[in-house]
Amino acid sequence: MAAPPPSPASSPGAAPYPATDRTVPTRSRERASYDRDAVHAILDAGYVCHLGFVRNGAPVVLPTLYARVGERLYVHGSTGSRPLRGAGEDPGLAVCLTVTHVDGLVLARSAFHHSINYRSVMVHGTARQVTDPAERATALDAVVDHVLPGRAADCRPANAKELAATAVVALDLTEVSAKIRTGGPSDDPEDLSLPHWTGVLPVSPGYGPPVPADDLDPSIALPGYLDRH
Amino acid sequence: MAAPPPSPASSPGAAPYPATDRTVPTRSRERASYDRDAVHAILDAGYVCHLGFVRNGAPVVLPTLYARVGERLYVHGSTGSRPLRGAGEDPGLAVCLTVTHVDGLVLARSAFHHSINYRSVMVHGTARQVTDPAERATALDAVVDHVLPGRAADCRPANAKELAATAVVALDLTEVSAKIRTGGPSDDPEDLSLPHWTGVLPVSPGYGPPVPADDLDPSIALPGYLDRH
Repeated sequence: MAAPPPSPASSPGAAPYPATDRTVPTRSRERASYDRDAVHAILDAGYVCHLGFVRNGAPVVLPTLYARVGERLYVHGSTGSRPLRGAGEDPGLAVCLTVTHVDGLVLARSAFHHSINYRSVMVHGTARQVTDPAERATALDAVVDHVLPGRAADCRPANAKELAATAVVALDLTEVSAKIRTGGPSDDPEDLSLPHWTGVLPVSPGYGPPVPADDLDPSIALPGYLDRH
Repeated sequence: MAAPPPSPASSPGAAPYPATDRTVPTRSRERASYDRDAVHAILDAGYVCHLGFVRNGAPVVLPTLYARVGERLYVHGSTGSRPLRGAGEDPGLAVCLTVTHVDGLVLARSAFHHSINYRSVMVHGTARQVTDPAERATALDAVVDHVLPGRAADCRPANAKELAATAVVALDLTEVSAKIRTGGPSDDPEDLSLPHWTGVLPVSPGYGPPVPADDLDPSIALPGYLDRH
């Protein structure tokens, strides 16, 4: 398989992603965005995506880690993984990669207007295995740093045997949309006097204190990138 | 379309879900579980799923709310939603519904052994629209209560117009598996003396203080089900 083209660098103020039939939602179109900075910010705020593909005609949705480098996403896994093997065959694997952050529970006075504040990105495209050694190394570092910025430089890089067991898959950001809901509940005027509490319960990821491994040398201090949490 | 069969009640100690070709993972089989209680606990700990289906031969992964009632999951949405319309046609819509909770970032001394502690459930099956009015009402209450237990009784139920605009889709728990990783990093013996911090950074959902709507009557107290957060 030919190596994929180099990923174009992200540039602030660049044109939005083009809207296509499958990136224009049938519902709540006012929540859709094709702005690159908005999409990048949502992708960079997470590290777990849900990767959808078709196997034997049926959909499969796998949770997995990812990273963004410019206008390209990377996913990695075992060379034995079924979707990653599929991405190594021509013409690659048709995927839909979705990232979702929940920001709040929106409690309206009516059951019907209950909602969720969220930010999500959906990427449609063809995933292809990365074979170039330099791009593979960049991608693997990016996945580690996407989960915890600063960590890639503070661990042993993969050796030849580990690299041989790891498949890296690339998905270009070409057919992409974000969907965002913010704000409070939107009750119908006739419900405003109902006696139910209404508002938003904010939700965000919480981090507990780091738990050292049992065999950690106690002279090794907690690194700064963990101290921030 | 015929009404779906009644959902079997969940019974503690029931037989596990049968393993099938598509619920046995190719990788990390020791992390897979088919235990009903384990699956139910993971499903009940969340409220956002990623619903995969196939449209025009390509995968689509949508984040959406869900609820579990016994051995059946419910998803709701607008009657105009594409997947929900598909579930209203015979023979229903082939879906894969995945729920994922991240419990920790696992930092090993080697990049290769970095991992995530997580609990996920993957459900394969055919989603069908629910037409029975009583089952629809149960499902809609369940979705509200799944997000925030106790809330369904403390808001105005959907009226006829709202019910007519809402599609409810059911997915039976028949082909189901959980995947769970717990514990610390598993470094190779030759890496144990490397000078990198190693352990787990715990992750869990965090809730901020409830934010009342601007038009909330200040005499309405914060309900107990919100006070618990």
